[in-house]
Parts: sequence; C-alpha cells; structure tokens
Amino acid sequence: MSVTPRSFHLIAPSGYCLNQAAAFLAVERLRAQGHQVNQTAIIPRRDRRFAGTDAERLQDVNALAALPTLPDIVLAVRGGYGASRLLPYLDYPGLAARLREQPVALCGHSDFTAIQLALLTHGVKSFSGPLLAGNFGAEVVSDFTVDHFWRALTSPEFTLGWQTPPQNVDVSGTVWGGNLAMITSLVGTPWLPALSDGILVIEDVNEHPYKIERMLLQLAQSGILARQKAIVTGSFTAANLSAYDNGYDFDSVWTLIRQITGLPLVTGLSFGHDRDTVTLPLGAHGNLKVEGNQASLRLSGHPTLR
Amino acid sequence: MSVTPRSFHLIAPSGYCLNQAAAFLAVERLRAQGHQVNQTAIIPRRDRRFAGTDAERLQDVNALAALPTLPDIVLAVRGGYGASRLLPYLDYPGLAARLREQPVALCGHSDFTAIQLALLTHGVKSFSGPLLAGNFGAEVVSDFTVDHFWRALTSPEFTLGWQTPPQNVDVSGTVWGGNLAMITSLVGTPWLPALSDGILVIEDVNEHPYKIERMLLQLAQSGILARQKAIVTGSFTAANLSAYDNGYDFDSVWTLIRQITGLPLVTGLSFGHDRDTVTLPLGAHGNLKVEGNQASLRLSGHPTLR
Repeated sequence: MSVTPRSFHLIAPSGYCLNQAAAFLAVERLRAQGHQVNQTAIIPRRDRRFAGTDAERLQDVNALAALPTLPDIVLAVRGGYGASRLLPYLDYPGLAARLREQPVALCGHSDFTAIQLALLTHGVKSFSGPLLAGNFGAEVVSDFTVDHFWRALTSPEFTLGWQTPPQNVDVSGTVWGGNLAMITSLVGTPWLPALSDGILVIEDVNEHPYKIERMLLQLAQSGILARQKAIVTGSFTAANLSAYDNGYDFDSVWTLIRQITGLPLVTGLSFGHDRDTVTLPLGAHGNLKVEGNQASLRLSGHPTLR
Repeated sequence: MSVTPRSFHLIAPSGYCLNQAAAFLAVERLRAQGHQVNQTAIIPRRDRRFAGTDAERLQDVNALAALPTLPDIVLAVRGGYGASRLLPYLDYPGLAARLREQPVALCGHSDFTAIQLALLTHGVKSFSGPLLAGNFGAEVVSDFTVDHFWRALTSPEFTLGWQTPPQNVDVSGTVWGGNLAMITSLVGTPWLPALSDGILVIEDVNEHPYKIERMLLQLAQSGILARQKAIVTGSFTAANLSAYDNGYDFDSVWTLIRQITGLPLVTGLSFGHDRDTVTLPLGAHGNLKVEGNQASLRLSGHPTLR
C-alpha cells in the first residue's frame, strides 16, 4: 500500500517511554517511508515515571495552538500515566480555534484518552489509534493496525466490519470512548463529553472483568449510559482471570450491562491494546449495525487529511 | 481486656470467602469469648466469585430493616467485589428508620465501603473496621485491631493518636471515607455523601501510587476535595513500586494533592488492609490535630453500644 508522505509531530503527555529503542525504531521506519517526524527530542525526556515535568508535557499539547505550521498528524509517543494531571491546564479555546483551521489528526490511545475526551468537550475531534512506541515501534508492525490508521485518517467515510454473536442492532450516533479506566476517571469532572446520542467504544488492559464491571456500573449509576445508543467492546488485554472467578468472566459483565441498561452491546471489535487495533475517529458520526453475525460501524464527519 | 458479650449478625454482600476456615475460626473465637454469632449459614454461600446471588446478598442487608430483634453488631464476612451491584436496590428508607431505633454497629471495610457510604447519604452511620474472615479470622489476631474495634463501638467519645511529620493542623468536621477505589467508584452516582465539612480518611490495597493519585485527582477535579477540611491517609498495602517509578512514590502523591487542594493531608494512620487497623465511625464528628509530630483524631457522635 503506497502512502502519501505526511508530517508527524510527536507529543509525550503521559508516561516515560521505557522502550526507547522502540520509539526510535518507529521514527526510523516512518522516515524510511518518506514521512517527516518532528519533535523527536522529547522521546528521551523523563521526570520520574513521567515523560517530562507537568509543564513540559503540558507544553507539548498547548504549543499546538501556536505552531506556525500545523503538521498532518500529532502522534502521542506512548501511554502510561500522566494526562490526568494536565487536564485543568490545557488551552482548550486556543487548541479548538487552531485545530479548526485545518484538519489535523491527533492520534493515540490508553492514557491519552483523557486528553482526547477533554478536547472533545470543546469540539476537537481526534483519533483513538496507534501510539508511536507500542504500535509503530513494535517488533513486528501490524499491517492491520497501519492499514486501518491510514484509512481512518484519509477517508471522509469508511466502514469497520467484524464478527460478533447475532443480535438486532441498527443505531446511529456520535462515536466516542477509548480506554475505559480513563473514561471512568473523568466522571464528575468537566472533561467527560456530555453526548446525548453516544456510541461508546471501550477497551482496557490489565483490568480484571470485575473492575471493568465496576467502571461500567459507575457509568450506569451516574446516568451516563442512559445517554448512549449502544456500547461496543474492543480488546480487554491481559485480564488474568483465576479459579476464584468460578465462571465469572467478561461475558458475565456484558450480560449484566445489557440487563441493567437495555442497551445493545456489541462485542468483538479489534480495538485497544492488542497488536491489531483499528483507528476510531472520536466525535465522528457512526452507524452501528449487526446483521447475522456481522457487525459494521460506518464512520463519517471526522477530520480527513487531503 | 474483658468484653461484654454481644450479639453479632453476619452479612456477606461482597465476594465469596475463599478462606472458609478463617471465617469459621473467627466465629469460634467470638463464641469462645461469650458472643452470639448469627447467620453463619451465609459463610459458605457462593455464586461464581460472589458470596451468593445479587438477590441473596441484597437480602442480607435489606433484611436488617425487618429483623424482630436488632443485633448489637452487623459484621461483613469479607470484602472482594459485589457491593456496587446492590446499591440501586438497598432499602434506604427502611434501613434508616430501623437503625435509628437503637444503636447498631454496622462494621466492615474494603468493598463494604460502597454500602457504608450509600447508607451515610441516608443518615446511617457505620464503622469502617474489621471484617470477620480477614481480621477476626487471621492466623494471629491483632490485639491493636480488636482493642480499637471495641473501643470505637463502646465509647461515646474517643481519640486516635499516631505519629506523623509535623505540620499545623486543627480542623473539625464529619469523618468519612474508607477504601479509596470504592469511594471513587461512587463519584457521579447518588451514593457519595455530599458533605461540606468532610475529614476524608482513605486507604487501599494492591493499588500503585499513580492509581491512587488518579483517584484523588478525580475527587479534586469533580469538586469533592474542595468540600473537605482535611485528608487523612491510612495504609496503602501491597502497592508494588518498581524501578520505572524512579523516585515517584506515595509521598509524591501527597505532595501533589496538598499543592493542588491546599488541604491539610495527614499521613500515617493505621487504617486499612494491614493487620493493625483502627475502627473509624463514618459520619461521626471529628477533631483532627497535629502537634509536633503527634497527630490526633477525636471522634464523637457515632452509635455507641451500651
């Protein structure tokens, strides 16, 4: 697949990238494909477990509002932890104004979800997709992940398809979500998008089904799930069930959430911390269907690179 | 220390008790001291990872409203997970009315925190203290824990004292809190007490400092810490820091929370999942002081067994 050369601008608002080699390998690979990659000097930046001090990491994001020339793609180096500390200090009006001028693809996932959803409360759409180190710097890069990334960033409309157990679903709404722990950490704060027609797509890593259930119960009990049209579940990586669970598993969670919310909950999207992950435009219009055991999510209305 | 014989009534609203021997040993020990222990039939009850179905676990609590004779002490068998599923279905008016008739000590911690705080939103005070299996059934029972338990339940006023780094603190307010993950899971729901003068006491187990920080940031960013007079930190058991943290630790968290909230944050109370834990009356009036490196918390206004 031939790809138009693009300009990448790196940001590191979350955790220090322990696998420095992976991040630099990713840069090398992107440059070998003809892309520009700027801001590589932030890759080794470190303050304790963070990718720099709060001020440095904040400036990575806020500086976008004042860049003389906007890049095509703003890419987060990695996840981890650290975005939550920055939320009160992001330049929301400045970023919203500047990023309206030209389509820019802000991309990342995991901890970055907090910043993406906070920006979405100010109308800034972004992409829940690959990170520099974990995805573009993987030992073996996933073609699935890379193909879906470029497709999402360059197609004004595209459709994701996957296998799922049969149920009757045909709903339209605003697609949002990402890492469930980060979404849940925004409940009660000013930075959780108050969508009335959400198609909520969730994923997580290293979280037991009971913790996922507790997070979804919090979203239900705080009235957030009542404003959704549907839930789509992605990957729940490295969950470590044990004999103590005794039959309790993710399917138990999905069954309970369907029961208490009455919402369609569609499982099986390759989205999250697994090697193969789709890129989802957050804030896009979505049409979610299940026909037989084929699920589809048609997406439109997101920023598109020319 | 000689103790008046009391009637214990067991409830199991959370996880299945894997260590059945510990729970039955606890019952045996309490009976050997002259106490009555009722509802022991629920100890082996199990549904997957839960201590029974939702209906069974719910009935443990709701049945208290209709008991012909109230016990002195209602004791949770263990923590784990399961209370969150019951919150919408608790008989709050019935329980509040019945438990006003006579002082009853509802006691437990960990997952039970959710039920305790939900009841507190309806004016029902309870005790964050030992669990049947983990504390009274421990291989070697902690005298510290047992002494503090009886002291809290039988003293109309008592004072906890502990060592802490010096700072100037002298505040009064309503003592509440418990397990921080459970407190945070109530943000946005109807079951988080909306206290305007809280002294928030927190503890947790198996949670890394960055997760504790993220929870406290959520409480800060949702306006809850702005309504507190002070924060007291208990035990943070089994947190598993690593080389990646590179100097980031619980002290980093406390420093940040002091900075962003301006609140006194007093560390070092023996409260939580460690072997030695005080029993804290939730909803009691508290006066928190630090003089030199001596902290004290005077408690009054809680239910007291005669």
